[in-house]
Amino acid sequence: MLSVAETAALLRTFDRVLILTHVRPDGDTVGCAAALCAALRRMGKTAYLLPNPGLTDSTRPYAAPYEAPEGFVPEKVVSTDIATVGLFPENAKPYIGRVDLAIDHHPSFEQFGKANIVRPEAAACGELMYDILCRFGPITPELALPLYVAVSTDCGCFAYTNTTAHTHAVAAALMNTGIDYKTVNKVFFRTKSRKRMQLEGAMLNTCEFHDNDRTVLLFVPISLMERIQATESDAEDLSALGGQMEGVDCAVTMRELRPDVWKLSVRTTSRVNATRVCQELGGGGHAAAAGCTIEAPLAEAKRLILGAIEKNVPDFVF
Amino acid sequence: MLSVAETAALLRTFDRVLILTHVRPDGDTVGCAAALCAALRRMGKTAYLLPNPGLTDSTRPYAAPYEAPEGFVPEKVVSTDIATVGLFPENAKPYIGRVDLAIDHHPSFEQFGKANIVRPEAAACGELMYDILCRFGPITPELALPLYVAVSTDCGCFAYTNTTAHTHAVAAALMNTGIDYKTVNKVFFRTKSRKRMQLEGAMLNTCEFHDNDRTVLLFVPISLMERIQATESDAEDLSALGGQMEGVDCAVTMRELRPDVWKLSVRTTSRVNATRVCQELGGGGHAAAAGCTIEAPLAEAKRLILGAIEKNVPDFVF
Repeated sequence: MLSVAETAALLRTFDRVLILTHVRPDGDTVGCAAALCAALRRMGKTAYLLPNPGLTDSTRPYAAPYEAPEGFVPEKVVSTDIATVGLFPENAKPYIGRVDLAIDHHPSFEQFGKANIVRPEAAACGELMYDILCRFGPITPELALPLYVAVSTDCGCFAYTNTTAHTHAVAAALMNTGIDYKTVNKVFFRTKSRKRMQLEGAMLNTCEFHDNDRTVLLFVPISLMERIQATESDAEDLSALGGQMEGVDCAVTMRELRPDVWKLSVRTTSRVNATRVCQELGGGGHAAAAGCTIEAPLAEAKRLILGAIEKNVPDFVF
Repeated sequence: MLSVAETAALLRTFDRVLILTHVRPDGDTVGCAAALCAALRRMGKTAYLLPNPGLTDSTRPYAAPYEAPEGFVPEKVVSTDIATVGLFPENAKPYIGRVDLAIDHHPSFEQFGKANIVRPEAAACGELMYDILCRFGPITPELALPLYVAVSTDCGCFAYTNTTAHTHAVAAALMNTGIDYKTVNKVFFRTKSRKRMQLEGAMLNTCEFHDNDRTVLLFVPISLMERIQATESDAEDLSALGGQMEGVDCAVTMRELRPDVWKLSVRTTSRVNATRVCQELGGGGHAAAAGCTIEAPLAEAKRLILGAIEKNVPDFVF
């Protein structure tokens, strides 16, 4: 595993770099990739992001200026905020086994790169990326804006339990460069589309409480997405909703990706270790936020996740 | 107007201090008062908060350890986060004209104290209080916890436009003392009662769009409150919901107080002056947040508010 200094030294030797982001890209993976790309270009290197078809209206503007043209043949491949090759988007699969440097912050990081750096105590990969990019000279607004997106989105605008004093210190440094963080905050944290609001309304109307009301299951079936004609942007980070419910310390959002294929996002507080729950079902993540996929009809998927929670929570009440 | 150093010097001369908080107390006024009280006591002084009957379940724990016993006769009176004597709670009115030091951050601060300090560029009065209390020695967790409540609540957990790099720097310093900021964030920013969620779900399901979807009406009829058995605290600040809707710049929340008596809260951005709209109907407020009351059946109340908006918005589309 590399140190920040070693990572910076390695990046200095790279050229013709392709940067990978994870499937269903969020602000952290996109912001880290964009900032790294800008920093590499400032050093005179050729660098691009692999186009990610999962970009949303809010993340696309940060990736767009850096997307690789068709036919770009990289010498080096770097991944940002990707814990495992299982999270490579389809068009990144050819690079499995060919990643020269993997930069991540997930405790479940699998060290799939030829070189690797991880900081599991960082709320966002953006915090680690900030420290790396500081080695290349001053953080300009061009770097600071995507880094602010990375840092702020992965900690729910400094409200999630992963937020640390370091997270705030990095935010202060980024904001001091003069970036328009107010627009970022408005777009990511204080704006909801009408369809998003309809989605949340429907989820609240159909959620199920278990375990003395401490565990809640929320459902996003394909039929709901189709009825509302909701897009991926509308459905971003829907798992935050259940985590807000008073008295609930284990919120499971079940999103139907394809018929009878459910992507589960588990958000917990201290009583429940989300990673252990999701590992039972082949997934992983952080202690308070993890995920897994279940291929089964809804009733069976519910039975499986409740069983996994029960197995890992001594005082679970059926 | 005093400097931070002058304010600290003045406070050193005080004893038997009573600290006032504002009506409908929020985290900022309570957190500032509690931190100041703790700091004064650490210096060996007698200091109390005037009990505030408006405390809620989330703010009460921070004020409770410091509340003045009945019959406490102060030598000195200090107010925190109070812009004008019009915001004194009823039991603070006897101290109008007797405030020895007023500490505030509102641009509209009226300098009603014998001595005054204001920092209008601060997101929270807590930022200013932090700088003052730093003059009295290290910021201990006892001071840092209420200060974190003050700072984080007044900037919407660092998401509102008033947030600055200084806000984050203060948060980082407070968090570095080892306080349990995670619980603060959970209680103030990531918890909604189930009834509150049901209320919001119902409002989203019944809202009406007008004016090319730029104006939205949201309804909280008595029947809804009764069906959910929602309390006043479940219904607090419901008008924020409409203000988050993408593309909406005029959100009207219509709460039925008594049969056919509607309290309207109007939240707008620059295109619509909320005060002018509400003045048409006998109300008032700020440019971006105003209110009025209409006594009429719902259909007529809707006609009246839409008419008032149309009259004050040149490009309103019926």
